[in-house]
Amino acid sequence: MTDQVRKILDCYRSENPGVLTNLARILNHGRLAGTGRMIILPVDQGFEHGPARSFAPNPPAYDPAYHFKLAIDAGLNAYASLLGFLEATAAEFAGEIPLILKLNAHDLLHEEKDPLGAQIASVSDALRLGCVAIGYTIYPGTAERRLQYEQLREVASEAKAAGLVVVVWSYPRGGGLSKEGETALDVIAYGAQIAALLGAHIIKVKMPTAHLALPDAKKVYEEMKIPHATATERVRHVVQSALNGRRIVLFSGGPKEDDEALFAEAHAIRDGGGFGSIIGRNSFQRDKTAALRLLDEMVRIYQE
Amino acid sequence: MTDQVRKILDCYRSENPGVLTNLARILNHGRLAGTGRMIILPVDQGFEHGPARSFAPNPPAYDPAYHFKLAIDAGLNAYASLLGFLEATAAEFAGEIPLILKLNAHDLLHEEKDPLGAQIASVSDALRLGCVAIGYTIYPGTAERRLQYEQLREVASEAKAAGLVVVVWSYPRGGGLSKEGETALDVIAYGAQIAALLGAHIIKVKMPTAHLALPDAKKVYEEMKIPHATATERVRHVVQSALNGRRIVLFSGGPKEDDEALFAEAHAIRDGGGFGSIIGRNSFQRDKTAALRLLDEMVRIYQE
Amino acid sequence: MTDQVRKILDCYRSENPGVLTNLARILNHGRLAGTGRMIILPVDQGFEHGPARSFAPNPPAYDPAYHFKLAIDAGLNAYASLLGFLEATAAEFAGEIPLILKLNAHDLLHEEKDPLGAQIASVSDALRLGCVAIGYTIYPGTAERRLQYEQLREVASEAKAAGLVVVVWSYPRGGGLSKEGETALDVIAYGAQIAALLGAHIIKVKMPTAHLALPDAKKVYEEMKIPHATATERVRHVVQSALNGRRIVLFSGGPKEDDEALFAEAHAIRDGGGFGSIIGRNSFQRDKTAALRLLDEMVRIYQE
Amino acid sequence: MTDQVRKILDCYRSENPGVLTNLARILNHGRLAGTGRMIILPVDQGFEHGPARSFAPNPPAYDPAYHFKLAIDAGLNAYASLLGFLEATAAEFAGEIPLILKLNAHDLLHEEKDPLGAQIASVSDALRLGCVAIGYTIYPGTAERRLQYEQLREVASEAKAAGLVVVVWSYPRGGGLSKEGETALDVIAYGAQIAALLGAHIIKVKMPTAHLALPDAKKVYEEMKIPHATATERVRHVVQSALNGRRIVLFSGGPKEDDEALFAEAHAIRDGGGFGSIIGRNSFQRDKTAALRLLDEMVRIYQE
Amino acid sequence: MTDQVRKILDCYRSENPGVLTNLARILNHGRLAGTGRMIILPVDQGFEHGPARSFAPNPPAYDPAYHFKLAIDAGLNAYASLLGFLEATAAEFAGEIPLILKLNAHDLLHEEKDPLGAQIASVSDALRLGCVAIGYTIYPGTAERRLQYEQLREVASEAKAAGLVVVVWSYPRGGGLSKEGETALDVIAYGAQIAALLGAHIIKVKMPTAHLALPDAKKVYEEMKIPHATATERVRHVVQSALNGRRIVLFSGGPKEDDEALFAEAHAIRDGGGFGSIIGRNSFQRDKTAALRLLDEMVRIYQE
Repeated sequence: MTDQVRKILDCYRSENPGVLTNLARILNHGRLAGTGRMIILPVDQGFEHGPARSFAPNPPAYDPAYHFKLAIDAGLNAYASLLGFLEATAAEFAGEIPLILKLNAHDLLHEEKDPLGAQIASVSDALRLGCVAIGYTIYPGTAERRLQYEQLREVASEAKAAGLVVVVWSYPRGGGLSKEGETALDVIAYGAQIAALLGAHIIKVKMPTAHLALPDAKKVYEEMKIPHATATERVRHVVQSALNGRRIVLFSGGPKEDDEALFAEAHAIRDGGGFGSIIGRNSFQRDKTAALRLLDEMVRIYQE
Repeated sequence: MTDQVRKILDCYRSENPGVLTNLARILNHGRLAGTGRMIILPVDQGFEHGPARSFAPNPPAYDPAYHFKLAIDAGLNAYASLLGFLEATAAEFAGEIPLILKLNAHDLLHEEKDPLGAQIASVSDALRLGCVAIGYTIYPGTAERRLQYEQLREVASEAKAAGLVVVVWSYPRGGGLSKEGETALDVIAYGAQIAALLGAHIIKVKMPTAHLALPDAKKVYEEMKIPHATATERVRHVVQSALNGRRIVLFSGGPKEDDEALFAEAHAIRDGGGFGSIIGRNSFQRDKTAALRLLDEMVRIYQE
Repeated sequence: MTDQVRKILDCYRSENPGVLTNLARILNHGRLAGTGRMIILPVDQGFEHGPARSFAPNPPAYDPAYHFKLAIDAGLNAYASLLGFLEATAAEFAGEIPLILKLNAHDLLHEEKDPLGAQIASVSDALRLGCVAIGYTIYPGTAERRLQYEQLREVASEAKAAGLVVVVWSYPRGGGLSKEGETALDVIAYGAQIAALLGAHIIKVKMPTAHLALPDAKKVYEEMKIPHATATERVRHVVQSALNGRRIVLFSGGPKEDDEALFAEAHAIRDGGGFGSIIGRNSFQRDKTAALRLLDEMVRIYQE
Repeated sequence: MTDQVRKILDCYRSENPGVLTNLARILNHGRLAGTGRMIILPVDQGFEHGPARSFAPNPPAYDPAYHFKLAIDAGLNAYASLLGFLEATAAEFAGEIPLILKLNAHDLLHEEKDPLGAQIASVSDALRLGCVAIGYTIYPGTAERRLQYEQLREVASEAKAAGLVVVVWSYPRGGGLSKEGETALDVIAYGAQIAALLGAHIIKVKMPTAHLALPDAKKVYEEMKIPHATATERVRHVVQSALNGRRIVLFSGGPKEDDEALFAEAHAIRDGGGFGSIIGRNSFQRDKTAALRLLDEMVRIYQE
Repeated sequence: MTDQVRKILDCYRSENPGVLTNLARILNHGRLAGTGRMIILPVDQGFEHGPARSFAPNPPAYDPAYHFKLAIDAGLNAYASLLGFLEATAAEFAGEIPLILKLNAHDLLHEEKDPLGAQIASVSDALRLGCVAIGYTIYPGTAERRLQYEQLREVASEAKAAGLVVVVWSYPRGGGLSKEGETALDVIAYGAQIAALLGAHIIKVKMPTAHLALPDAKKVYEEMKIPHATATERVRHVVQSALNGRRIVLFSGGPKEDDEALFAEAHAIRDGGGFGSIIGRNSFQRDKTAALRLLDEMVRIYQE
């Protein structure tokens, strides 16, 4: 057990040994084992965007086994996916990498101003599939966020009692937020705070921009001169907003980006005190060799 | 146990022996036993369209025993129907053919832009009636699909724990889809992917057309040049979209069609890697001799 | 056990012995015992129309004991009523006639285009009051029929497990149906089919008219030349629509009618293969002597 | 046990001994013990109208102990109140007077055309506080009355199983009723019938006026010449509408009235076969001496 | 056990020894131990207003441990916060100060006329974190207050059975109330009455102004000449409205105020018979030395 991991686990002292054990499993797996940093491969794009938009750019990715192997071969900390993907492959790769079962999902076949998502799997599913954690996406800012928070309360409580780690994807959206506002620094920090207060062990947010969207918050950022010009400063602010660094915060970049931009982001995450990355489309929408090269570079950045 | 069946069961290794056993019962029953292909007779038209529209073209079909005998005499793999139909006849034909209890249903007595359906039977009903599987219809694309997905989660989870196979009818519909869009290739493939991710063991979709309905998806199909000119190519794409062939996908044709068209579809399903057909109205809305002749030809195609 | 009753019970072979026993109790009680025909007295008008509209025409009927005695004295097969009526009298008349507890009810104090009703009693209530069956009213064609079908699924499932018979009143209504459409032959037959598929043991519908309301259905009735000119033909079609005679179908006439019309209907029900009548207002809204005379005549028709 | 009480208990023969015992406790307590008549003190005005409107006219009434003592000192049959009021005082006065816990309540801080109320306490609360009964208010005529009836079903069923008496306040209201219509004779009688059918043991209604509000009912009242010119006749009709006198019906007057009017009402209730009064604001919104004088006179009227 | 505490506990005699014990723990902790007065530090601003608006004015407050220590160092009676804050620190400070877990929370990322809040933690969470009480916020005056009252009923009932104290934040809001009306005396008193009737052990309200908002109530205040010119009189009226002093009522000031105004309020609370203060933003949005100075002065006022 390295000091870095021990220090992180100390922030979760109120949790039961089951949760601590599974959290340690994630922190101590793969090439970043023991560093206190992590990279997770999430694959739920097929539900959100449909199969062709998700997998046609790299057809082997239609196969759920592809992603399992990619995460294993790249030496990542964990692999997160939806029920069907894990059911189709969990027995085959049992014990090879920590698994996170995303419990809810949302599709775009019906457009909504305030998306809601559906809980499509349960804590029991996570247990029978050998997972170490459950995942759940919230959309703070949407009209029906109450339903999401209460559903999360129920699954998180059941998960913790069963010794599972709770990972929350916090994506502010909804009728009151502009597209630009969804990644504004104040909004992302607010989403991180909410996820932390809801009892998330690991929080996943998008990389924030320097934009400030909420008028009342903007006034405070300006009065207090909260530094937010650089990505590193913004990461630091988000981590601070997640219980002052007492909760693991991971960042994602969204759609396929320029690799250099991704590496720059990883540097900013690392330097700002972030705990790592969740990389989905950027890795599985290119061929495997290129994906491994990309992930290798990401790992190296976090190893420094 | 043939190699074809063993290979299919391998894709379901994460499931418990109860599910594997019941899946094997379907695969190993009837004239297609052991081929890895299947034809299922579904009879829920009486609920969806009313009795006269469903059965008047062939009045013996008003009797639920008629369908049971038809499926048995034609040597099909399974018979799927609604609660009342099975309650009225399950004891009489106990053990003669694998049964699928459709748990939800929808009627057209009240028109809706976004149909929802009702859960009219339970997993307990399926068990007490001797069924090997439950069936459930989802309408991806409808406003209240969340309710459907969550209801499916509950019954599917209960079914799997009881060793029952989960069959999902995935019919994209709803206010955001045109009539033509409901059978567009991208939409059908999306519906198959959703059903697979929701944990379906067997997925039933409509035969897709070459139409592409969702603008964002259309762009990808064109950029990536996904082959979809022929029915065979479209079947292949849908099967690929259902976990790359790791889940059984069945196709249906809809209303009474020209027999030659049906046979052509069966060839395309077979050649595209599909697992078989669900044939309802096309078989029970003609007299029994004609129906047996049609089903015999379908079986022969899948036996090749 | 007569052949007629044995033949009916054979249609319910999938049910447990408890249900068969209670069904036999209804079929073997009263003056129609053993005939395979039945007349049931239902009294829930006080909830639907208020007490004065229901009972002022024959004031002794304000008393729940009046109805119990009427059903007993007339030698009917069963008495159906709501919770309060049975609670007030069930102990007094315990064991004298089979009882059906109507579990849901609807009042007219608030007008609605799509009525819904409320479940006001439970299966436990039926058991503690010594009933042989539960009753439940559905309104196919209403916007919220899903809630009704799902509530029915729950109480029916619980009732069957407890050995109780399930009686479903199927009254198509709702915004999409005209007043005339509610008793159209195609609509009544559709309602009977839905009740049967929902798992009803006994189905109660209104006497259909020769009107055809649903355009898609009308086309079929005309193309297939389904006979429906006479009441006898229409009864035969409705019985056929309820699993081809495998489920008991009862008919009612509605508000106070000319006695000769009632007798004519009973002849039609009998000759069309119907199983009997449910007679409420027509019997209890006249003085007891007249009511007994009417019911005696009805019984005689069904005894022929 | 007096004959009057025994006769009343006989109407509840279907209930278990627990319910009979608690009903007897109410009937055999206070100065009206054994008469078959009862007066109950209800205090839930603070929730409905706020504290100042309820208690400022007689400030000692802000204290929940005041009401307990008032009911005891006046020799009433029972005291009914909301959770907080009973929690604050039930231990202090344990065993001194039968208690009724009102389970639901409604406030006027948000105006609604169709009030709904909230269930703010449970049957368990009633048991732990030593109550003999639960109370529940329904608003027949409101859009969401279904929710109320179903909530009442659940608590009433639980209460009866625990041997508690069920008291239902039946107040027709809602968008389809005029203010005058809420106390119309036909509407009050309808409300009493509904409460009785829902399984109430004791029904509380407002004193009806001679007004007739529902057109279909009005026609019947006029055709049948139902006597309703005097308050006594109207009480008799309401009692008849509550299972022909098989259920205890109590009447209330509403806001502070002229005492002579109250006494006249009590005479009418007694002479019309009513079982007594529920007197809230009229007693606690005057000083205690005056309240005791008023209640003494009410008791004397019912003792005659 | 001082007389002051004994007198307060006497008001809760109907509660079980578990609740009495935990209530005594709050009353007997910190510098106000034994006085019958209390000051509580609540920290849920991060959820309601976001992290920057809450903590940027005093950055150490981003850390949940900061608040724990502040409450301990200031010698307060209890510390109240949300799930994530307590999970991150409860083990570290176990046993050092009584804890209150706020079970519901509301964010401002989506504007609503009638706010609702979400239940984000459970009674089980409170127990596993070593809390002595749960907290719950209601918004009387909002359209969906029914959901809040019923959710409170469930958690309060579970909490009491587990021996936990129930603290209710009662904040009238909603479409029918003006901003000024939310703190009007009649509205605050009404909110205190509702919280008391819902079974709260401790009630938290805002300091009322002399404004009267509800026309029907205003008439009574004026007719009855209820004194409300001074803050002391208004506190006395609110305490009277909470079961005549039988329930602990605490007051808060809201956003950062002038210290002298705060002290004046504390004097008014004390002199009006209030039981103390809940001070959040006013204490943690300044540096710790200043916060301790402020809290010390508050404690001294209540010690007099």
